[in-house]
Amino acid sequence: MTAFKLDIAATDGPARTGIIHTDRGKIRTPAFMPVGTAGTVKAMLPENVAETGADIILGNTYHLMLRPGAERVARLGGLHTFCGWPGPILTDSGGFQVMSLANLRKIDEDGVRFRSHIDGAEEFLSPERAMEIQRLLGSTIQMVLDECPKLPADEATIEKSLALSMRWARRSKIAFGDQPGHACFGIVQGGTYPHLRARSAGELTEIGFDGYAVGGLAVGEPQSEMFDTLEATVPHLPAGRPRYLMGVGKPDDIVGAVLRGIDMFDCVLPTRSGRNGQAFGWDGPMNLRNAKYAEDTGPLIEGCRCPACRKFSRAYLHHTVKANEIIASMLLTWHNLTFFQDVMAAMRSAISEGRLNAFADAFFARYPKRSEDATP
Amino acid sequence: MTAFKLDIAATDGPARTGIIHTDRGKIRTPAFMPVGTAGTVKAMLPENVAETGADIILGNTYHLMLRPGAERVARLGGLHTFCGWPGPILTDSGGFQVMSLANLRKIDEDGVRFRSHIDGAEEFLSPERAMEIQRLLGSTIQMVLDECPKLPADEATIEKSLALSMRWARRSKIAFGDQPGHACFGIVQGGTYPHLRARSAGELTEIGFDGYAVGGLAVGEPQSEMFDTLEATVPHLPAGRPRYLMGVGKPDDIVGAVLRGIDMFDCVLPTRSGRNGQAFGWDGPMNLRNAKYAEDTGPLIEGCRCPACRKFSRAYLHHTVKANEIIASMLLTWHNLTFFQDVMAAMRSAISEGRLNAFADAFFARYPKRSEDATP
Repeated sequence: MTAFKLDIAATDGPARTGIIHTDRGKIRTPAFMPVGTAGTVKAMLPENVAETGADIILGNTYHLMLRPGAERVARLGGLHTFCGWPGPILTDSGGFQVMSLANLRKIDEDGVRFRSHIDGAEEFLSPERAMEIQRLLGSTIQMVLDECPKLPADEATIEKSLALSMRWARRSKIAFGDQPGHACFGIVQGGTYPHLRARSAGELTEIGFDGYAVGGLAVGEPQSEMFDTLEATVPHLPAGRPRYLMGVGKPDDIVGAVLRGIDMFDCVLPTRSGRNGQAFGWDGPMNLRNAKYAEDTGPLIEGCRCPACRKFSRAYLHHTVKANEIIASMLLTWHNLTFFQDVMAAMRSAISEGRLNAFADAFFARYPKRSEDATP
Repeated sequence: MTAFKLDIAATDGPARTGIIHTDRGKIRTPAFMPVGTAGTVKAMLPENVAETGADIILGNTYHLMLRPGAERVARLGGLHTFCGWPGPILTDSGGFQVMSLANLRKIDEDGVRFRSHIDGAEEFLSPERAMEIQRLLGSTIQMVLDECPKLPADEATIEKSLALSMRWARRSKIAFGDQPGHACFGIVQGGTYPHLRARSAGELTEIGFDGYAVGGLAVGEPQSEMFDTLEATVPHLPAGRPRYLMGVGKPDDIVGAVLRGIDMFDCVLPTRSGRNGQAFGWDGPMNLRNAKYAEDTGPLIEGCRCPACRKFSRAYLHHTVKANEIIASMLLTWHNLTFFQDVMAAMRSAISEGRLNAFADAFFARYPKRSEDATP
């Protein structure tokens, strides 16, 4: 059994590159984790997700607990077997989706009671149940249950929520127990208040986790606030453990966060955008629905290794997007995941060679500054 | 330039197996052609369609003329280049879809005027325009424009419609002109009236086509009537030319039609059913939505070579069908196309070895007799 462990191969300022070892294989960092909400990275076969360069995918506890159900997944051999992904899987705790998707939520010290958005059934999630579900799924990296308050929020609200999240973190860690080769990550909260972020990081470090996530960001705040918050948080996290920025983000968010010491990311952006006709590239996103692509025989991105770029024209993608054909979702998702992985691979090389700042300068010189400055 | 030609390698009763040569490659017969309506076999990449064993796909003139438009496809290098399928493509004439999908149809001797179901634009299709569109698309096998009356219909209605279709067939053949390596197929009409089918076959043979389709079937009549009509039609067609039964069908329809001398088939069934959670097998169709599959860890079909069967359980397919995940459409389409091609390959072998009747007996002994006896 391989122990869960981060080996840092090189650093470049606050940024690091290395390998996370797990009992399901290695994760090269900085890593982007495609989101496979309900046991599938939408519109992709698992082997093709791996071909894009992904070492790890994410599953959503909220969705999986409702359908097909954690006990059922366990009876079917666990999430890896069920969804055909043999590599590492990270699952969130379900807390974020309960807040954003479920109905009739009621939070107290014990946990959160809510109704399923699928069939209205009453459900309950506590720190202990969230960890039990993730263990039933067989998740490689399991996240503590936290409360994720909406931003902006006043300091008292954030502080109260943070205190609850820290008590839940302690209970989650105990519930996780001892699972060799697997990991339990704590989640730093504290809104955009530097002293609350520092306090949260300190308390979690005291409990002691295998890795540390930064939560509660990418919920609508300006990018500069997200970066400021990272700068106020990362120095308070132990250097030898993986750092994961949850739910981020756009390519420029990711580059900025790697510069500030983050190792892991997840976001629905490449998959969801792919299903909506949007393709990412070094010059920013393209909307394939745009009529200017109707007779464009060029590839999405010159030299890209994905099948959308190697085998099809922008004109074909435009046509299939307009006609709502599934192949458009398949090809644009494949392209976007490839592009995100290529950005990560470029940053890993740059950090190894001590030229991350030069990479980032070149990246930001080319990638368009967003018109509105909010994170997704 | 390879001339268009059918080489019959073996016969077994009325059934034949062989190779159709085209300038785009070979078609093994009996052949099943997956339907790629709007420039994509839905939910499949072209290379994966080829992997299932398909030598030729079908495109729909009606859909392609409306979007992206025949002239545009021609400017983009033709349908093969546009949709990434280098092999043979057969296009229908658009007539059938005008009847079933378009609005405000008005048919006269000249052709049919209608409104697009996409944007309401007024459109016109004549025998000459149907052939011009198919030439612009670069279609390998081009179909004459015909009128396809709804069944049941009285003899006078069928006879009048047939007469128009025969005049249109003559104009279509002239419009097709000389396209080496490509083919123009006539379409036998005549409803379920044997003498009208014989007359239609005779008139088309006199005009002289590269192949002959049987049209106006699989529109709701009982399977026995379809088979009777084939028996009344096929003997009147020249032995050395391909015979194509349009829009058929279920696996048992196809086996029955091959027994009666048909060489080519197309149907949306494997692709459309795949998107609706239905999987085909030697024991008949399975509805993956059924709760009995929720914890079934077995494959769809034991020993099947498709990725749905090799890599996923019925339980996973059940889950992803219920959750409306695109991967369910992808996997079930892939499986169904593989199964249909495996049925065709089994028949080609059986004909080669003079044991098609034994194959058919075993097939029908296992495949469930349909509850209602109508074609799709």
